[in-house]
Amino acid sequence: MSSRTTNKTELNVLGDFKPVVPSEYRKSEFVYLANNDPAQNTKIIKEFDRVKFSMCDTIDFWISTKRNDVIKMMGAVDSVVINDEEAKLLTKTHNLIKAAKKIMEWGTRFVVIKKGEHGSLLFYDDVVFPSPAFSLENIVDPTGAGDSFAGGMIGYMASKNSTKLSTIREATVYGNVMGSFAVEKYGIAGLVKLRKSQIQNRFNQYRKMVHF
Amino acid sequence: MSSRTTNKTELNVLGDFKPVVPSEYRKSEFVYLANNDPAQNTKIIKEFDRVKFSMCDTIDFWISTKRNDVIKMMGAVDSVVINDEEAKLLTKTHNLIKAAKKIMEWGTRFVVIKKGEHGSLLFYDDVVFPSPAFSLENIVDPTGAGDSFAGGMIGYMASKNSTKLSTIREATVYGNVMGSFAVEKYGIAGLVKLRKSQIQNRFNQYRKMVHF
Repeated sequence: MSSRTTNKTELNVLGDFKPVVPSEYRKSEFVYLANNDPAQNTKIIKEFDRVKFSMCDTIDFWISTKRNDVIKMMGAVDSVVINDEEAKLLTKTHNLIKAAKKIMEWGTRFVVIKKGEHGSLLFYDDVVFPSPAFSLENIVDPTGAGDSFAGGMIGYMASKNSTKLSTIREATVYGNVMGSFAVEKYGIAGLVKLRKSQIQNRFNQYRKMVHF
Repeated sequence: MSSRTTNKTELNVLGDFKPVVPSEYRKSEFVYLANNDPAQNTKIIKEFDRVKFSMCDTIDFWISTKRNDVIKMMGAVDSVVINDEEAKLLTKTHNLIKAAKKIMEWGTRFVVIKKGEHGSLLFYDDVVFPSPAFSLENIVDPTGAGDSFAGGMIGYMASKNSTKLSTIREATVYGNVMGSFAVEKYGIAGLVKLRKSQIQNRFNQYRKMVHF
C-alpha cells in the first residue's frame, strides 16, 4: 500500500475552478494549500494578509503537466510537504536529502518528505529530522494519509500559534499520528469521530515508542 | 540501493564447510550467527557454554532452500536480525509487524527488521521500537550494511555486558550508526579505520537528530 499508480486524471469541476478566498478566511495565519493547480495556489496565497506559516503539497499530475508552476509555488510558501515518490519525480534524483535540498533552493525554508509506512523526514537549514511512522498492524485504506499528515502538522502549529523549530518538529510527529488514524479505517471514518484526547494519547504513545 | 537481486548463489568453500568453534571462543557470552547454513548455525550455537545473548541473520538463499532449518535456527537464538525483504519472503506476509510476530512464534524473543535507508524496527513482547537510519546524502556501497548493523548491535551489548531492554534499544541505534559508516565508503573502507570516538560522536548526533 506504499505506492500509487495514476491511470488517468480528470480534473472535472476543478478544471475551470477559480477559487476566491472568502473574506473571513483572509486573516488566517496558518495556511495549507492542498494539491490543486499550482498556478492557482500561488495566486491564492497572496490573498491572505497575515500569513505566519504557509505550506503546500503537490501531486504527480501537476509535476508532469505544470512543473514550472509547481516550482514557483514552492518558492512562495514556508514549507513544502510532499511524498517521497513525488519528491523524486519532481527533482529527478533518488536521494531524498538531495531532493529536499533542491526544493529548498527554489525558495521554501522547510521541506517535509512523507514516506508512508516509513514515516517522514523534515528538512531545514542543514538539519534532517526523521520521524518513523506510528506502527500499525492493520492498515485498511491509505487514501488521505498525506492530507491528514499535513492537516495534523499545520493544525498543531496553529493551535500553538507558533512557528518555532521545536513546534515544527513536534508538528511533524502530529502529522504522523494523524496519518496513522487516517489509514486505520476506510475513507474518513478514522478521523470524523476522533477526540482530541485520543490524538494526545497516541502522541504520548509515540514518544514512548521511539525513546531510547 | 535498497533492494537486491540474487542471480545465482555458489556456496563454494562454504558448501562442505563443517565449522568447529575454537575452544577459546566457547566461553563467548554474546554470539552472532551470520547467514551461513541454518542447520550448521543451530548446531554451532550449542557449542557455546555461557551464552547470555545470541543472534542470527539469514538470507534469501536459505529461505528458499532450507526454510524449515531457518525456522528451527530462529527458535534457538534470543534475537533474529533480518532485512525487510527476507522477513516478508520467510513469513509470507507484507506487513512487517505481522512478519515479526510470526518469527517470534518460532521461539525467539527479539526480532530486528532492517529496512536499509528507512532504519530498523525492534520487536519484543508487544513492543515496537522503530529507529530511523542515520541520514546520509552520499551512499557509496550498501554491501555489508546489514552485518555492520548486527555487529554494532551485539558489540555494544557485549561492551556493556548487558541484556537489559534499554541496552538492546540503544544497541539497535548503534546498529544503525554502524550501518551508516559501512555504506559511506566502498567495501570495508568505512569501517577499518574507524575510531571509537567517531562512533560515539555519531551516536550523539543521532540522538540530537531524532529529538523532539
